[in-house]
Amino acid sequence: MHQITGNTRIFGILADPIQHVKTPQGINQHFAAEAFDGVMVPIHVGEGELATVVQGLRAVRNLSGFVVTVPHKSAMVALCDQVSAAARLIGAVNVVHRSADGRLHGTMLDGEGFVAGLRQQGIEPAGLSAYLAGAGGAASAIAFALVRAGVSRLTVANRTSDKALQLIERIRSIHPAAVLNVGTEDPSGHELVINGTSLGLRPGDALPLQADKLQASQVVAEIIMQPAETPLLSAAKARGCRIHFGAPMLSSQLALMAAFMRGKLEQLEVAP
Amino acid sequence: MHQITGNTRIFGILADPIQHVKTPQGINQHFAAEAFDGVMVPIHVGEGELATVVQGLRAVRNLSGFVVTVPHKSAMVALCDQVSAAARLIGAVNVVHRSADGRLHGTMLDGEGFVAGLRQQGIEPAGLSAYLAGAGGAASAIAFALVRAGVSRLTVANRTSDKALQLIERIRSIHPAAVLNVGTEDPSGHELVINGTSLGLRPGDALPLQADKLQASQVVAEIIMQPAETPLLSAAKARGCRIHFGAPMLSSQLALMAAFMRGKLEQLEVAP
Repeated sequence: MHQITGNTRIFGILADPIQHVKTPQGINQHFAAEAFDGVMVPIHVGEGELATVVQGLRAVRNLSGFVVTVPHKSAMVALCDQVSAAARLIGAVNVVHRSADGRLHGTMLDGEGFVAGLRQQGIEPAGLSAYLAGAGGAASAIAFALVRAGVSRLTVANRTSDKALQLIERIRSIHPAAVLNVGTEDPSGHELVINGTSLGLRPGDALPLQADKLQASQVVAEIIMQPAETPLLSAAKARGCRIHFGAPMLSSQLALMAAFMRGKLEQLEVAP
Repeated sequence: MHQITGNTRIFGILADPIQHVKTPQGINQHFAAEAFDGVMVPIHVGEGELATVVQGLRAVRNLSGFVVTVPHKSAMVALCDQVSAAARLIGAVNVVHRSADGRLHGTMLDGEGFVAGLRQQGIEPAGLSAYLAGAGGAASAIAFALVRAGVSRLTVANRTSDKALQLIERIRSIHPAAVLNVGTEDPSGHELVINGTSLGLRPGDALPLQADKLQASQVVAEIIMQPAETPLLSAAKARGCRIHFGAPMLSSQLALMAAFMRGKLEQLEVAP
């Protein structure tokens, strides 16, 4: 990477543990490609010290922003001066911009990263009917982003259907006109089918939805990155579906994170 | 520089303003030469926020240390858990090591850097009689370091001779056996003659000592880096003296700072 000088803007990633993070490599490569004089460093902070470290970072004038990951995403919501509506409703912040006045602006880009990853692969979600398995943190972020991207309707299916209903109600509170339904394990009748659960991560996991109902006209997408081809994607491929891997969600998110930290993305749908 | 990963140890330099600092370049080059996986970034912090930022840095587990410069050197003394005797008596800290337990250990390496710079140029101060013009912050650090390095005697000359006497008394409090005197503007009778004042920095400055008394057997040293050849050094050269520039003080200090921040230098003469 390029030489760090007194003019270099600084960025961090807050995590515990820290050793495994790959975001500094990705962001620094991105900055280099953009010929931007910035550097991201890993910042190892335990749960009990998050507020102290964030208070310190707030006072660092040449810091533009930071990424937040395990275990700090939830706690970071209350430490921001302003968070996006989606981040507030999901209850998690994964990226922060520090404006020149020392204020911290947080948002959650997991869902935007997923949508950008689809688009990178030539899949435009606007106008598609979408089926989402899961209603946890990652699925919630994707659900918000799909609605923002303009899907024609969104069906959320979750083993505990109350959780799916609660997610739908939260989305409706900021997107009152969206067409939202609670679904079953059957993804029939949707153009875009997404696994937003962790099923498929471990060998022997159950399938997240009824894969035998998939049809060749459907696109089937994953959020799981390891293994790249989950049992769901294998089944979808066997039935002639177009498949979409989990990896683009992260790679696409790097550019969004870099832009947000630099204050270049609008703070859309800011919560009151 | 090398790729930053989750395993990279982080270091900072605290300053205001920050743009002009050259320490990140020097330290990162030093780390690269040692194949050490560390990175120094500039940290821009105003006077009013020093305590907040330091409190945050204290909680960053992968931070090994930081350099402190204008305007924070004095305030940093009280923010350390432990400071070296010289730093306490000089009243300034310019480098901090953070140990794994989050404690901050401060010292002042300006004087050690000066002595290391002399040695780098083949001038061993041990056993030499030394004359020092000045009793301010930089001169004080050099006086302590010269005594620690084992000069046979040290004469301190200052326009306000009370200040020279106070410096001598502070040195004597931790080096009771040292031979220390208050001097005049005449450097005669000393093997090593040092300008520890800022006289020579600006065109038209008075000479810091009676240069017409210099003799060819004397070594004449500067702490001023710009201009490299001050009027004092020009006069000394004209009189056949060996001269020593200000630059080695900083370059030698980089290696000492790197070692101290990494916890590799003993915390010598720790104050109670």
